[in-house]
Amino acid sequence: MTSIGQAHVVALSGGVGGAKLAYGLLQALPADSLSICLNTGDDFEHLGLHISPDIDTALYTLADLANPQTGWGRRDETWTFMQALDRLGGETWFQLGDGDLATHVERTCRLARGELLSGIVSDFARRLGIRARLVPMSDSQVRTRAITDEGEFDFQDYFVRLQCRPRIQAIRYMHADAARPAPAIESVLRDPGLEAIVICPSNPYLSIDPILAVPGMRSAIRAAGVPVVAVSPIIAGEAVKGPTAKIMRELGRPASANEIAHHYAGLIDGFVLDSRDRGLADTIGCSVHIADTLMRTTDDRIRLAGETLRFARTLAATPGGRRQ
Amino acid sequence: MTSIGQAHVVALSGGVGGAKLAYGLLQALPADSLSICLNTGDDFEHLGLHISPDIDTALYTLADLANPQTGWGRRDETWTFMQALDRLGGETWFQLGDGDLATHVERTCRLARGELLSGIVSDFARRLGIRARLVPMSDSQVRTRAITDEGEFDFQDYFVRLQCRPRIQAIRYMHADAARPAPAIESVLRDPGLEAIVICPSNPYLSIDPILAVPGMRSAIRAAGVPVVAVSPIIAGEAVKGPTAKIMRELGRPASANEIAHHYAGLIDGFVLDSRDRGLADTIGCSVHIADTLMRTTDDRIRLAGETLRFARTLAATPGGRRQ
Repeated sequence: MTSIGQAHVVALSGGVGGAKLAYGLLQALPADSLSICLNTGDDFEHLGLHISPDIDTALYTLADLANPQTGWGRRDETWTFMQALDRLGGETWFQLGDGDLATHVERTCRLARGELLSGIVSDFARRLGIRARLVPMSDSQVRTRAITDEGEFDFQDYFVRLQCRPRIQAIRYMHADAARPAPAIESVLRDPGLEAIVICPSNPYLSIDPILAVPGMRSAIRAAGVPVVAVSPIIAGEAVKGPTAKIMRELGRPASANEIAHHYAGLIDGFVLDSRDRGLADTIGCSVHIADTLMRTTDDRIRLAGETLRFARTLAATPGGRRQ
Repeated sequence: MTSIGQAHVVALSGGVGGAKLAYGLLQALPADSLSICLNTGDDFEHLGLHISPDIDTALYTLADLANPQTGWGRRDETWTFMQALDRLGGETWFQLGDGDLATHVERTCRLARGELLSGIVSDFARRLGIRARLVPMSDSQVRTRAITDEGEFDFQDYFVRLQCRPRIQAIRYMHADAARPAPAIESVLRDPGLEAIVICPSNPYLSIDPILAVPGMRSAIRAAGVPVVAVSPIIAGEAVKGPTAKIMRELGRPASANEIAHHYAGLIDGFVLDSRDRGLADTIGCSVHIADTLMRTTDDRIRLAGETLRFARTLAATPGGRRQ
C-alpha cells in the first residue's frame, strides 16, 4: 500500500484506456507509490450482483490478468456460466466470464455483510499482488445515466445493451450530490508526499466527470497544490476506443484534443497531446507535452507514463507551471 | 407438465440416490406423468446465493446433465470461478462449478424479484427439457439442522464442511412448523389420476423426514388413498452413498433395511427390499418386494423403477394391500 509521506502520484481513471496508462504508471514508479481513483458511475446491479466495470478493468490490467484482445474481462477465461444461464432463460446481454464472476460474487457478498467498496477493492488488489492503491471514487453509490433521444438509460443499458446507439443529449450522475470521496482518496490528496495528479486518457464525460462530480473531489484536487496533468483520450479527432468522439459530437462539441483540454480548464496545469495533433498545441490553454499517446504495447504504456510523470515534474519545477 | 387427470405417480426424493430412481421412473412412465417432491431442508445461502442441492441434483440428473463420477454437479463442468474466488479470499469449502453457478445466480435473482421457488424450479425443468414436474416440498424455508456432540450446525456445514464427522444426537427441521406444502404437490396428491407414491432410496432423516415435517404433507400422502412404496436406501447394513448408516448408528438404531421400513410405519404400504437383505423380509411389517436395488447403470435405474411401479400396482389391486 502507498506509504503516506513517500513521494507518490494519484491517477484518475475510467476503464480500458485509463487502465493502460495506470499500468504504465505502476511500472514507471517505485512500488507502493501510485494511488488510482476509479470511476464507479458505471457500476450496476445485474443478476443480483454488484458489478464495477472500471474497478475490475483496473484490477485485471494491473494484475496482468486482463484479456489482451478485448481490454475488458480476464485472460484464459471460460464461459460455461453464460452458456448455462442462457439455457435457463437468464439475461445474457452482459457477458460475464467464469473467473470474472468470482469478483462480482465475492464483492456482492462482502457488500451485503456491510464491508465498504473501498475496503473490498483494496483487499482484492492486495490479494492479486498489485503494488498500488486502488480506490473507488466513493463508497456511496453514484450512477451515470445517459439522457438520449430514445429516453434515459442506466449507463450499462446505454453502453452495452444498446451499444451507444441512441444519441446522447445529456449525462447525469445520479446520487452524486449525496456522495463523498472515499476516505483513502481524501487522505492521499492531502498527503505532503503527493507529487502529481494524472487524469488518464479516459472518456471525460463517462469516466472522469463522475469522479469530479463527487462533492469535495474537485476542490481536494485543487487544494493538493501539485501539478495536474491530463492525457488526451482523443487522437486526430477520434477516440482510441469507445464512444468519446461520438458523444462529443452529439453534445455539439468538436471531437478534438483541445476540446478535452478546455473541458478540464481550471483543473489541469498540463496536457499531454498526441503528436498527430501537434498543430493544436497553441489552442490547449495550458502547458503542453507532445507525445505518442497510442498505447499498443506494454512498452508504450510505460513510455507514455514516464513522459507524463517527467512532464508533471517539469511543471512542478517551473514558476507559473503550476496553478497558484 | 403433468396433466391433471392423467394417471401419474408422485416420488419423494432427496439427492443422488433419490434422483437415480426418479430418473428411472421418468423413463419407465409415459411423459408428463411423474411429479417429484424434492427436499429443500438442505437449501442454504452461500456467497449470497440461494443453493438448493437436492433440487439441482434432480434437475441435472433428469436432464442428463449430471456428473456421472460425483453424482452431484454437472458434467462437462469448468472450475474457473472457484479458482478465481480462492485467489480473492472467498469461501471455497463448497464446490460450485461454473455451469452450476448459473442455476444458483438465476434462482437467487428470481427469488429476489419475488418469484416462488416452485415456479422457478418448474421453469428450469421445462427449459432443461424434463418431462416431469419437479416441485420443492415447500415455498417456505425449512432448514435441516444437525445437533451433534460438537454443537448444532447448518446442514451443509455438517454435511460438506465437516464431512459428517461430528456424531449426530438429533436432527431438527427449523421453520418446518410455519411451512406449508407447495401448492403443486397438494394438488397432485389430491388428483384422482394419482396411481402411486414412491419414497425414493434417500436418507430418511436428512432427505425424506424434512418433506414429511411440512405440516399437512403426511396427511395429504395418507389421504391420497394410493399405494405408498418406499425403496430401501440400505443394503446389507450399509448405505449405497452418504452417511445414512452412520447416522442410524449414532441415533442408536440398527443400520438395517427393516429399521428404515419401521421408520416409515403407518405411512407406507410396501417396501422394496434389496435381495441381499431377503432374510429380513418377515421383519418389514408391510408388503415386501425383493429386488436388486443397487443402481449402477441407467438400465438399473429403469429396471428398479419398473419393478417398484409394478409392485405398487399389485398393492393397489390386492385387498388389504393398501391402507384403508
